[in-house]
Amino acid sequence: MKPIKLGMVGGGSGAFIGAVHRIASRIDGEFNLVAGALSSTPEKARTSGEELGLAPDRSYDSFVEMAKSEARLKDGIEAVAIVTPNHMHYPAAREFLERGIHVICDKPLTATVSDANKMATAVENSNALFILTHNYTGYPMIRQAKELVATGELGKLRIVQVEYAQDWLTEPTHNKQAEWRTDPSRSGAGGSTGDIGTHAYNLARFVSGLTLNKLSADLDAFVPGRRVDDNGHVLMRFEGGAKGMLWCSQVAPGNENGLRLRIFGEKGGLEWSQEDPNYLWYTPFGEAKRRLTRGGAGTSPSANALNRTPGGHPEGYLEAFANLYAEAAQAIRAVQAGQPVPSNVHFPDINDGVEGVRFIDACVRSSSKDAAWVSL
Amino acid sequence: MKPIKLGMVGGGSGAFIGAVHRIASRIDGEFNLVAGALSSTPEKARTSGEELGLAPDRSYDSFVEMAKSEARLKDGIEAVAIVTPNHMHYPAAREFLERGIHVICDKPLTATVSDANKMATAVENSNALFILTHNYTGYPMIRQAKELVATGELGKLRIVQVEYAQDWLTEPTHNKQAEWRTDPSRSGAGGSTGDIGTHAYNLARFVSGLTLNKLSADLDAFVPGRRVDDNGHVLMRFEGGAKGMLWCSQVAPGNENGLRLRIFGEKGGLEWSQEDPNYLWYTPFGEAKRRLTRGGAGTSPSANALNRTPGGHPEGYLEAFANLYAEAAQAIRAVQAGQPVPSNVHFPDINDGVEGVRFIDACVRSSSKDAAWVSL
Amino acid sequence: MKPIKLGMVGGGSGAFIGAVHRIASRIDGEFNLVAGALSSTPEKARTSGEELGLAPDRSYDSFVEMAKSEARLKDGIEAVAIVTPNHMHYPAAREFLERGIHVICDKPLTATVSDANKMATAVENSNALFILTHNYTGYPMIRQAKELVATGELGKLRIVQVEYAQDWLTEPTHNKQAEWRTDPSRSGAGGSTGDIGTHAYNLARFVSGLTLNKLSADLDAFVPGRRVDDNGHVLMRFEGGAKGMLWCSQVAPGNENGLRLRIFGEKGGLEWSQEDPNYLWYTPFGEAKRRLTRGGAGTSPSANALNRTPGGHPEGYLEAFANLYAEAAQAIRAVQAGQPVPSNVHFPDINDGVEGVRFIDACVRSSSKDAAWVSL
Amino acid sequence: MKPIKLGMVGGGSGAFIGAVHRIASRIDGEFNLVAGALSSTPEKARTSGEELGLAPDRSYDSFVEMAKSEARLKDGIEAVAIVTPNHMHYPAAREFLERGIHVICDKPLTATVSDANKMATAVENSNALFILTHNYTGYPMIRQAKELVATGELGKLRIVQVEYAQDWLTEPTHNKQAEWRTDPSRSGAGGSTGDIGTHAYNLARFVSGLTLNKLSADLDAFVPGRRVDDNGHVLMRFEGGAKGMLWCSQVAPGNENGLRLRIFGEKGGLEWSQEDPNYLWYTPFGEAKRRLTRGGAGTSPSANALNRTPGGHPEGYLEAFANLYAEAAQAIRAVQAGQPVPSNVHFPDINDGVEGVRFIDACVRSSSKDAAWVSL
Repeated sequence: MKPIKLGMVGGGSGAFIGAVHRIASRIDGEFNLVAGALSSTPEKARTSGEELGLAPDRSYDSFVEMAKSEARLKDGIEAVAIVTPNHMHYPAAREFLERGIHVICDKPLTATVSDANKMATAVENSNALFILTHNYTGYPMIRQAKELVATGELGKLRIVQVEYAQDWLTEPTHNKQAEWRTDPSRSGAGGSTGDIGTHAYNLARFVSGLTLNKLSADLDAFVPGRRVDDNGHVLMRFEGGAKGMLWCSQVAPGNENGLRLRIFGEKGGLEWSQEDPNYLWYTPFGEAKRRLTRGGAGTSPSANALNRTPGGHPEGYLEAFANLYAEAAQAIRAVQAGQPVPSNVHFPDINDGVEGVRFIDACVRSSSKDAAWVSL
Repeated sequence: MKPIKLGMVGGGSGAFIGAVHRIASRIDGEFNLVAGALSSTPEKARTSGEELGLAPDRSYDSFVEMAKSEARLKDGIEAVAIVTPNHMHYPAAREFLERGIHVICDKPLTATVSDANKMATAVENSNALFILTHNYTGYPMIRQAKELVATGELGKLRIVQVEYAQDWLTEPTHNKQAEWRTDPSRSGAGGSTGDIGTHAYNLARFVSGLTLNKLSADLDAFVPGRRVDDNGHVLMRFEGGAKGMLWCSQVAPGNENGLRLRIFGEKGGLEWSQEDPNYLWYTPFGEAKRRLTRGGAGTSPSANALNRTPGGHPEGYLEAFANLYAEAAQAIRAVQAGQPVPSNVHFPDINDGVEGVRFIDACVRSSSKDAAWVSL
Repeated sequence: MKPIKLGMVGGGSGAFIGAVHRIASRIDGEFNLVAGALSSTPEKARTSGEELGLAPDRSYDSFVEMAKSEARLKDGIEAVAIVTPNHMHYPAAREFLERGIHVICDKPLTATVSDANKMATAVENSNALFILTHNYTGYPMIRQAKELVATGELGKLRIVQVEYAQDWLTEPTHNKQAEWRTDPSRSGAGGSTGDIGTHAYNLARFVSGLTLNKLSADLDAFVPGRRVDDNGHVLMRFEGGAKGMLWCSQVAPGNENGLRLRIFGEKGGLEWSQEDPNYLWYTPFGEAKRRLTRGGAGTSPSANALNRTPGGHPEGYLEAFANLYAEAAQAIRAVQAGQPVPSNVHFPDINDGVEGVRFIDACVRSSSKDAAWVSL
Repeated sequence: MKPIKLGMVGGGSGAFIGAVHRIASRIDGEFNLVAGALSSTPEKARTSGEELGLAPDRSYDSFVEMAKSEARLKDGIEAVAIVTPNHMHYPAAREFLERGIHVICDKPLTATVSDANKMATAVENSNALFILTHNYTGYPMIRQAKELVATGELGKLRIVQVEYAQDWLTEPTHNKQAEWRTDPSRSGAGGSTGDIGTHAYNLARFVSGLTLNKLSADLDAFVPGRRVDDNGHVLMRFEGGAKGMLWCSQVAPGNENGLRLRIFGEKGGLEWSQEDPNYLWYTPFGEAKRRLTRGGAGTSPSANALNRTPGGHPEGYLEAFANLYAEAAQAIRAVQAGQPVPSNVHFPDINDGVEGVRFIDACVRSSSKDAAWVSL
């Protein structure tokens, strides 16, 4: 199999998530980065391209130019990774979708609901695939959890507890990451809700399979002068009667990247923590708690299909991210061969993306109405 | 020092919390159980008295009789432990308070706000002490946590996350414990909120020192036919701007007695879990997380005053409970000597009790109004 | 049931283990401390007696006097707790054993093998019971572990890993506890081996049921000037082919009271740690690891017979210690009623004591011969 | 920077460690696999080459042919990864070393001491680099640990406790991995000692900087018919007086890949576990235990230089492995530029390899003499 030719929009020198996407695309040898519009500043775009060893004529000053040129090339890019700040996701993605180039887009989908809807239309009108990197869904033990729920091991679900706590914005911060993530014009109206709450919500949906009916959100910007929320408390009511709580925070000292999910049903409970991702704690009601380990005894073939190493060899964030790229590759190759996307592929898609943006929007709306119940 | 002569109301054969109170009263040799009205069923009261080795003439058929008789005895009881179902706390306590006998009462204070207010009046009109056994406040590492907050190590508080999760009511249950705890006429209008949510709330208040302004509660009775809530999701707004979430559940498989508290301020964060009570996790913002251990390096004299053994010798639930009895003894001896209650004594009192019942009531009121914000 | 009348030798003001024995004897209300020879210094003995509320005429200057007087009293003590430094265990115990008073003795049995043998003879010639407080055997989850091994759940045993690590002697220390524990004339020839290694060895034997054939020990006194070992590395060969390692240390910074046991057989493995005693980790080979909890799902009636509270209410060091006192009470009452000691009683006895002293002696002998293999 | 052209010997379809090396070489984009002699069975070598997308003329039937051909090519491989069973490491490596091609070799160095010495000579006579993939040294928190020791934070070292426990050979096993690893003619005389004990020993040396003087080993083959040890207990004496214990086992149910290291000195202690590699527990004597996290507060620039993501984004086995490849790349590029190998590069080298084989040999010799002390 030849590697899939990949382009990248955003992700120039110093960017966090761009580097992550590049590693993720490389781990399994399925992608080859050959083009980029790596920064909105042309000079920086060029320097970054050189650093990454791009051919000079495929290191572009703008994504529009890149989309046009690559679409014309005989061996132009087959897929593009979009890793800009949120407000640029739609304008960039549109250019590639229109030209049939598959899009792998970072989350949240867009900065606004309006853009999210436009993105949905663009995807609908394109024959290209759209993959959203809600990367935490790529962890094998999350797939295991999803399967335990789906096969009824937990019984009817009652309670979802999900949280995503960090501390890096505890004090006023002025680095590159913090700047755009706390600027509503670039990140959207949600701060912690947009940056991490949406991950938490997506993960809860992914594993539980539940549909959210209503939420009530109480958001705060604890750091003086901050223009977006840095802490959010959310109550959730799902279709069918399950209830949930979601906490997201970037001002909780002692939490680095604390995404944690707990789900409880009539017959059992699950617990998982992103910082210790190789463990899934499963308690069938009335039995002792079991520690399932990635690749270990009692795990399922579908979860283990995402492993690269046996149990006890910890895999982490980058491998989970790479699992989405691996699934993207599977899907792209299937489409290129005129076949349907394989059913074992579970990457988040445009619907998850729209749902995520609506979640952020609902949190902001609810909070502005004193935490009233709102629908998505 | 002679042991303090103790009576008990409730706590006959098979009762859980009565046995706990007796052990707690015995651990430090400060109390001697000499009288009881151990059951509302006279025959069971007598049998239970025999089992516990009470003198037959001090094993009473009713608490009224007991209060009257003991008050007349030259060496009658000096204190009474009240460990009945909630709705009997007030009628029983009143009899002893009126007669100047110190009362150690299990939580929640009463089954109704009306009774709570009457209890407050009875305490006010009595010269006896009133100790409420919100026993989790007796853990040394909880005292350590309280001190870290009080001395400003965490800075101004922003976020309180507290939860109390169990699973013993996941399915319909018909044992003695479950019966009265799910019967609103005996336990009060709150189910999980009353039985354990009130513990969680009290602990959060105890450690944080914060005052709750408003709450919004979404309560459920997931088990068909259950007449009180078995799961509660609560948003909290404190004076001064801190926010909080409280989760209580008795239907969360995999949780035995999972009371957990996390508090975050501008300068640091704390985490504590009741099932691993000898550890307190403390992170000064920008430094590595520290595991403080009961009696270990970095703990304070006031926390360590509650220890019976050095670090590494785990103390648990019974020792924490006994710490409240030890403080009760200290206070009773002080009062008997005409001295003020020592300032190092921190047992929960009538105000905490009233606050707890108001919390339950507020949860129920809020939930009945679709989780509207209500004041306590 | 009337409490058993208890005396105490040693355990005056400031003693650690004496206070522990007193609490342990009190928790279940089975014993009543009524006499003592609490110090070898008569004045201190008297003061300590006053502090503990002993009647002046039953607070003795010496254990010989106490044994003689109490034996003559109509309601003299029925049992005595011996909590002196090791070298006094035998001289004290003998006086009571000769007079038919049951002996509860702290570990190690004696400071020398010669004394251990004399103690064995004294016990053999007495109709009194002899209980050795290797207290860690009193933990319910240790009983659970013993049962899993005994019922064959682990299959034939292959490997025993046991360790007991502390750090309190990392630097030269001069408190009361350290003084006698590092003085070979009082503690015996073993330092860490005698104080804690013997606990580790006893626990491994208790749970595994294995018999030690040979050991090879490499002991060190890392702190300059220390006259006994403060660190020991021991290889073990058991009858039947199982092998083991034992590490004891009092100079391992970061370890408070780190007694840990792991046992592996052909069919499964177990792990337990004293500092988290309510958990037992059990892995049937080929299945997921299970966390058994004290009183929780999957635990056995015999383990649960030692519980005072339900699962999730942590019990600790003092409760485990009290379990040996409770078993002592059961045995004493049986003997007093002319019945055999109940089969569910598992407290360590004189044989365990002799075995423990031989273990220390073997470690010291082996180490002095460059870690040669020696028999016990 | 152009990727370094890499060849591979061994690692055909179904091989575990070959796939790991390929991923590790890819993660940072520093290597490009362009040639291989992927199996000793020519047909399998060819098929495997096709699967990996090698050009047919660079997929060789034998490593000798590959070494000769590639050395002649203008853009032949610059480095080769040797991932065969142990007994082939030397014959293969020699061919490349002689031709100045850098060698990245899996551990242990060779199956025999004799081969190890020949390998040392071959390295000495070559101007090529030799990198041994004792991959666990590549974990950032291991680098942090090494630095804490080296800068004296632990004071003079006293105790090293290291273990490597697995359970995959608990029963007779006949898969490809098990076959050669339990065949002394291919793996060498050590079983668990060679496969994992040597990793444990290397890690202990790497972090502690100590030199082993003598060891005493008690090895067992618990599974009937097994020709090499599957469990080893080792006592260690280091230069300068520190002592250690090493346990390696492949028959310990409940252990997947349990490599754990603890080091204690006069001033502090460290603990690290490979299955939770992002945490390093550090206790300065007399202070609370601290949990250092990869990339988190309190970590050093040299440890963090190996990170790809911020704290809280778990990195694992593959990233640690890739760190050795990244350091290999740094060193290769330096050598190609006529510069010295940078001082921040810490990959294990030929000396570590020889030391490792001597360790295995010493364990086997000691055990055959009833665990006598032997020198390496």
